[in-house]
Amino acid sequence: MSGFANTDASADLVRDLVDANHILYQQGIVDAFGHVSARHDHDASRFLLARNVAPARVCARDIVQYAVATGEPLASDAPRGYLERTIHSEIYKARPDVMAVVHNHSPAVLPFCVARGARLKPVCHMAGFLGGADAPDGPALFEIRDHAGAASDLLIRSGELGAALARTLGAARVVLMRGHGCTVVAPSLRVAVFRAVYTEVNAKLLLGSLPLGEVVALTAEEADATRITNEGQVTRPWELWRDQARSEHSPAT
Amino acid sequence: MSGFANTDASADLVRDLVDANHILYQQGIVDAFGHVSARHDHDASRFLLARNVAPARVCARDIVQYAVATGEPLASDAPRGYLERTIHSEIYKARPDVMAVVHNHSPAVLPFCVARGARLKPVCHMAGFLGGADAPDGPALFEIRDHAGAASDLLIRSGELGAALARTLGAARVVLMRGHGCTVVAPSLRVAVFRAVYTEVNAKLLLGSLPLGEVVALTAEEADATRITNEGQVTRPWELWRDQARSEHSPAT
Amino acid sequence: MSGFANTDASADLVRDLVDANHILYQQGIVDAFGHVSARHDHDASRFLLARNVAPARVCARDIVQYAVATGEPLASDAPRGYLERTIHSEIYKARPDVMAVVHNHSPAVLPFCVARGARLKPVCHMAGFLGGADAPDGPALFEIRDHAGAASDLLIRSGELGAALARTLGAARVVLMRGHGCTVVAPSLRVAVFRAVYTEVNAKLLLGSLPLGEVVALTAEEADATRITNEGQVTRPWELWRDQARSEHSPAT
Amino acid sequence: MSGFANTDASADLVRDLVDANHILYQQGIVDAFGHVSARHDHDASRFLLARNVAPARVCARDIVQYAVATGEPLASDAPRGYLERTIHSEIYKARPDVMAVVHNHSPAVLPFCVARGARLKPVCHMAGFLGGADAPDGPALFEIRDHAGAASDLLIRSGELGAALARTLGAARVVLMRGHGCTVVAPSLRVAVFRAVYTEVNAKLLLGSLPLGEVVALTAEEADATRITNEGQVTRPWELWRDQARSEHSPAT
Repeated sequence: MSGFANTDASADLVRDLVDANHILYQQGIVDAFGHVSARHDHDASRFLLARNVAPARVCARDIVQYAVATGEPLASDAPRGYLERTIHSEIYKARPDVMAVVHNHSPAVLPFCVARGARLKPVCHMAGFLGGADAPDGPALFEIRDHAGAASDLLIRSGELGAALARTLGAARVVLMRGHGCTVVAPSLRVAVFRAVYTEVNAKLLLGSLPLGEVVALTAEEADATRITNEGQVTRPWELWRDQARSEHSPAT
Repeated sequence: MSGFANTDASADLVRDLVDANHILYQQGIVDAFGHVSARHDHDASRFLLARNVAPARVCARDIVQYAVATGEPLASDAPRGYLERTIHSEIYKARPDVMAVVHNHSPAVLPFCVARGARLKPVCHMAGFLGGADAPDGPALFEIRDHAGAASDLLIRSGELGAALARTLGAARVVLMRGHGCTVVAPSLRVAVFRAVYTEVNAKLLLGSLPLGEVVALTAEEADATRITNEGQVTRPWELWRDQARSEHSPAT
Repeated sequence: MSGFANTDASADLVRDLVDANHILYQQGIVDAFGHVSARHDHDASRFLLARNVAPARVCARDIVQYAVATGEPLASDAPRGYLERTIHSEIYKARPDVMAVVHNHSPAVLPFCVARGARLKPVCHMAGFLGGADAPDGPALFEIRDHAGAASDLLIRSGELGAALARTLGAARVVLMRGHGCTVVAPSLRVAVFRAVYTEVNAKLLLGSLPLGEVVALTAEEADATRITNEGQVTRPWELWRDQARSEHSPAT
Repeated sequence: MSGFANTDASADLVRDLVDANHILYQQGIVDAFGHVSARHDHDASRFLLARNVAPARVCARDIVQYAVATGEPLASDAPRGYLERTIHSEIYKARPDVMAVVHNHSPAVLPFCVARGARLKPVCHMAGFLGGADAPDGPALFEIRDHAGAASDLLIRSGELGAALARTLGAARVVLMRGHGCTVVAPSLRVAVFRAVYTEVNAKLLLGSLPLGEVVALTAEEADATRITNEGQVTRPWELWRDQARSEHSPAT
């Protein structure tokens, strides 16, 4: 059985991964670029990620199986993959708790990847996952110049860079990437999509709030408490977004 | 007769409540979260609120009857409700004049719930209801830390917290909730929707105006006069929004 | 022949006026409120304006004939009109060159009606009509408190207030109204729609530019030259907007 | 064979040029104004550009052949052209490497054409083409007053003004035009569209970042490296945007 267009992961997971691609596009979190993966649900040493195609256009047959160990496809005849797939593989390697990874250039998040000193702290209850005991000041910023010098193309092109990014992520749920975007992780695919959307919502809110005066961030305790509460409600937004994405999606490949 | 999918409230009110859910979504006032209720039109001790589902997906059979006294459903077999239904019950209890309540995370309003000292004063004639003699400086801010400490999940989870919120609301029409959103009340469901939409409009306007210089707010007299005038015109936007929401809504449950 | 749903103005003008209502809605210049009129093309003492209905829902049968002299409908059985129709009548009276009037609450324009001292100068060539020899510093601001005191509902409810607004407009093409919106005039209906749209575009541009540093406004000569050039091209946007508005419009009354 | 609605350029190029018009509209880079051209693929002395019509409404039969030498149509019976076609002809003359040109009034770019001293530096990896060794500080600003005085209509109406604009562009890929918009060039039509879209994305990002603190721009080396990488991926966004534009486009002329 070929690794391309076929996987022994559950059909539910593949279907959710296709939906996740379309939801992230429809919610404005990815454009023609960005990608979302899920760890294989029967084999933790593998993960599922689309071939090199825009998320809005991903179909089930575009899903490819990769090895966590190498970031390379399992099948020798796999189609061309995304350049930055070691973002996914190295995070799955470093964080056994992570079951899904989203990488994007989320538009309101990018200013926090560009302006020195700006911190993407959680300021509303829907985005508690940005802070808490694991990330008391909000997501850390990965400066690729510290690892690849000042002449790189900013992409995570190697296992070494993926591992460095995973170290900056640490135990947190989001890591910002200077001049580039962010990467979001979660214990499930649906929660990863939820976190990617509300990272953008919180960023937009901060962009609106900072000019008004001193901003009140959630305490670490509030952040952890809201995260636990909201992520128990993840079915509500997922079903809404999925239905919308399906009604607007006309697959074209 | 079961309280679920059945009520002896007028069919017009139930239909308006379903429309209100869809309008608030379509106008960007709620996303997958937020809720709107109406006091029962034949029994002031009850109110109608959807079960725990995204507003865009609410159908008539999702409407549940609750007791004002307790915030609990009348029927023992009622489906799961929203976590924060005491927002509604405690306001109906404290304010006999209130016939409808909207709770939301309205995006342009949230900066005024996050930046210390920013006031959401009415600056345009469509939003006079934000001020007036009952709220000369605009809506008050409810700081949940004053009631639940600094480790809560920010939700109004109890009658006590609902009652505290109602006290902060006082005689006003809107109350802001720190790090969370706002709650809007009105003497009718259609006016509640109108006020929720124009609270967002006024907030967006203030976000654009504050960087330009000193802002001229409505006087209390202007605020009261514009409120009375505009709310006599509420059928005009209601019919427009309702037609749009109906034409874009394909119920899916 | 009744003045309601009938007029001896040209069929082309009536059709353009219906399209203008829908275009202004579809371009985000009016919401459920705002209105657009045209001077009767065979009788300069009359003008055409919809009955009291949201612009998006205007049909040909909603068009009513009004007298310039009084702002009152010609037919005794005319349906209810907009409260502020003297905006239109008094400007037609004061400005024989004006053939069309748009009144709106254009969202990016409103900050310039709220923040003291901010001037809506033309900064891009599409919006030269905002300045020029007739309005070297951009549109003037009408402060209704100077005419109706500090307890009004901000509406132009009388011939006196309409006349005061027309005096503030003077020979210019746009007048701002504090806490309320703006009014745009032109020598033709299509140019009035063009100017209303690009007043919003220029305002949005200024809101983005002012935080960046000193802004370079058009000189009065540039403003007049660009106005003459662009308004010779008005068919291009009109046909685009009209086609879009027609394809999205499903009349409902 | 007439130059109107006929050309001996490849059918693929004509089809891409029609798609490019619709993509630029659908992505919000042009409105009723703006234009995109391609150098003829069999004869470098000619280029293809639509007749004077809104980009969203361009059909294959609207494509006209122009002479690079003069900016005039090859056919004596050609339909009316855009006023500013010497933007295209003079750039093709000065820059043999350029195969496509986009001129627009891109909304987030315009503040950088209006606020004195603001620089549109590349700050994200998708927009490296704005900088690099050829444009270390980002695009230069063309001030038409230096060439046409302070009473012009800001349009590039002559070969002389087109040549002056081409000199300000120099070896760069984007040139800003004071109070007007920008012009983007590329070695292929698809890359020109890509650059026009991401010029807007980078501008929006800078508008969000500048109020937050000191901004980290790409180094010239990063800018060149990211440009080379991303433009090797141009098929991915092109196919997505093209499919969307085609599904939303109903030709009307």
